[in-house]
Amino acid sequence: MLSGERFRVRYRLSGSEPEAYAKAKDICVEQTVEFPEELLPVNFIRDEVVGRIEAFTAGEGAFFADISYANETTAGEFTQLLNVIFGNISIKPGIRVESLTLPDSLLQAYKGPRFGRSGLRALLNVPSRPLLFTALKPMGLSAAELAELAYQLALGGIDIIKDDHGLTDQCFAPFEERVKRCAEAVAKANRETGQKSIFVANVTAPSHQVLARAQQAKAAGAGGIMAAPALIGLDTMRQLADDDSLSLPVVSHPAFQGSYVTSAENGISHAALFGQIARLAGADTSIYPNFGGRFSFSRAECESIAQATEAPMAHIKTIFPSPGGGMTLERVPELLAVYGRDVIFLMGGGLFKHSRDLVANCRHFRDMVEKF
Amino acid sequence: MLSGERFRVRYRLSGSEPEAYAKAKDICVEQTVEFPEELLPVNFIRDEVVGRIEAFTAGEGAFFADISYANETTAGEFTQLLNVIFGNISIKPGIRVESLTLPDSLLQAYKGPRFGRSGLRALLNVPSRPLLFTALKPMGLSAAELAELAYQLALGGIDIIKDDHGLTDQCFAPFEERVKRCAEAVAKANRETGQKSIFVANVTAPSHQVLARAQQAKAAGAGGIMAAPALIGLDTMRQLADDDSLSLPVVSHPAFQGSYVTSAENGISHAALFGQIARLAGADTSIYPNFGGRFSFSRAECESIAQATEAPMAHIKTIFPSPGGGMTLERVPELLAVYGRDVIFLMGGGLFKHSRDLVANCRHFRDMVEKF
Repeated sequence: MLSGERFRVRYRLSGSEPEAYAKAKDICVEQTVEFPEELLPVNFIRDEVVGRIEAFTAGEGAFFADISYANETTAGEFTQLLNVIFGNISIKPGIRVESLTLPDSLLQAYKGPRFGRSGLRALLNVPSRPLLFTALKPMGLSAAELAELAYQLALGGIDIIKDDHGLTDQCFAPFEERVKRCAEAVAKANRETGQKSIFVANVTAPSHQVLARAQQAKAAGAGGIMAAPALIGLDTMRQLADDDSLSLPVVSHPAFQGSYVTSAENGISHAALFGQIARLAGADTSIYPNFGGRFSFSRAECESIAQATEAPMAHIKTIFPSPGGGMTLERVPELLAVYGRDVIFLMGGGLFKHSRDLVANCRHFRDMVEKF
Repeated sequence: MLSGERFRVRYRLSGSEPEAYAKAKDICVEQTVEFPEELLPVNFIRDEVVGRIEAFTAGEGAFFADISYANETTAGEFTQLLNVIFGNISIKPGIRVESLTLPDSLLQAYKGPRFGRSGLRALLNVPSRPLLFTALKPMGLSAAELAELAYQLALGGIDIIKDDHGLTDQCFAPFEERVKRCAEAVAKANRETGQKSIFVANVTAPSHQVLARAQQAKAAGAGGIMAAPALIGLDTMRQLADDDSLSLPVVSHPAFQGSYVTSAENGISHAALFGQIARLAGADTSIYPNFGGRFSFSRAECESIAQATEAPMAHIKTIFPSPGGGMTLERVPELLAVYGRDVIFLMGGGLFKHSRDLVANCRHFRDMVEKF
């Protein structure tokens, strides 16, 4: 009855070998039929719908099970794909999603990012150097004050200037006014510099307003949109990316998503969440906290994310890693060595700290990556 | 400039006292301005927008900080409220949201559950006993087979019969056909028994289809809808609950949400997530894994959820806790002692296991709670 096409999830399982194997067997049932195995009908449900252990190996400090599921269990829906991968077992301790192996037959249901690395480079007219990215802040400034900052940042050569992720529609700087002023300020700077900086509007918003804000942003001249998928839903980000009437680059922000990665034993691996899942959700770039900043990701975890943004994934485009969070100009040479050219450096407060001349700080940042 | 109205979040902070206090100070900045404190303008931004430590106390194995934020930081948006509470700091280890204290001035932006405990009791014509709840499964059965199960379950006196959370729009049992057949089957049983069982359709779906499926379910005669807020977005659940053209009870399912509660040191407390946040998101009942089943919640954690479903919260209605997962008929007396009358018992596979006569098993379940 089924196509025979299956996708695989690699899980990291804690405990002794018998415990870990029992977990793997339990996952096969919990994530699909969620029904006493002995009562299952003896037909394709038992043989094909229930997950299947394809491999079980010992690794560093844990065991790893590759479990396959029938494509049909996901109904071609991103929400249900996520549910099969990690729905109920998110509640069971000692299970972590390590990586996804998705066949073309499953991936054809997903468009992935609209722009990806090459599309974003073309849009910004930056063929090969790392891209520069910053955020407008602090919350509490007026729309006019934020727009003045946006102007200076664009004048200094920052490629992507976004709303801070906490700016939504506060009375300090209401969405529509802020987006209009900031997009205009960046356009003015572009006319003066001849460059192609863009303003990216934060459209993380109540469910019934997300699409409308994205359209408002586009109408106001924003060059991209940002959302926190843990707040609006990963599939709502997918919807933003897929919307032909919008056709704007999409930036994924990790707010409220951290609980999936704060434990080595539970949740989802950094590479799967900020790399593979972000790509499926249509993000053209995935923001995550860089190592050595004020967050706690390790260098290896950050490298694993960068790898997942470019690993082959059928027709799904490669995207940019956007390490950010506590970045400073002093660290740029070290980070260039780690990430190479295909990266978007997100620097917020660090740009303001370097000297009192914001435009000069931006130009210094730009010089550092142009010399690379 | 600001109203002076503030809401409070209690955080559990790991580490030594100086470490925990430093975390509290960091949270005040990270969750609001996210900007070097020394560079903040000396005005209302520094004095009112930045979070404020209202209390800092030592507790069992950790420290607890009560931090207040200006209502205005949330812009009256549920997504931004969640972002202020736990956005970026979800990525920082050793911080857990313990509880929320939300003033009427903030809560007036939220309608909360449409039915709540008393509305659901009136709808189901069950004035005081615990309610009975089950799920149609396993995935792989046809719509007709699931409808036949729904008929038997309603005949046996189960009040709420829902799609298993993994049933969406699979080829085995497409959404529209399944919902129509199952709602009809429950209506037929109601005509025979004179009771008021309802069928609850799972509307966890791609973002652009959630509302349409909810309307289809209503048109087909479903008496309620279910969604997993971690998959569709918490605010999308709020939108479903608020929709006057829908006006159906909303069931919250914990799939993909577990990572927030699998660690005692990180994430969100059971009571805040499955109690307070579920109520704000408009759920009339909140499903969570019961203690002693195949999941790992403790009895105390389950009791804390039940307490949070009924604690005073301005005009926001009390809701039902729905413990489920690995429940059996044998455990009902113990659970009645723990939860009392105001509970919805969710029993899936356990109902099938008791004997081969499903209708008799349901009647036995019903007898047990009616005697209470």
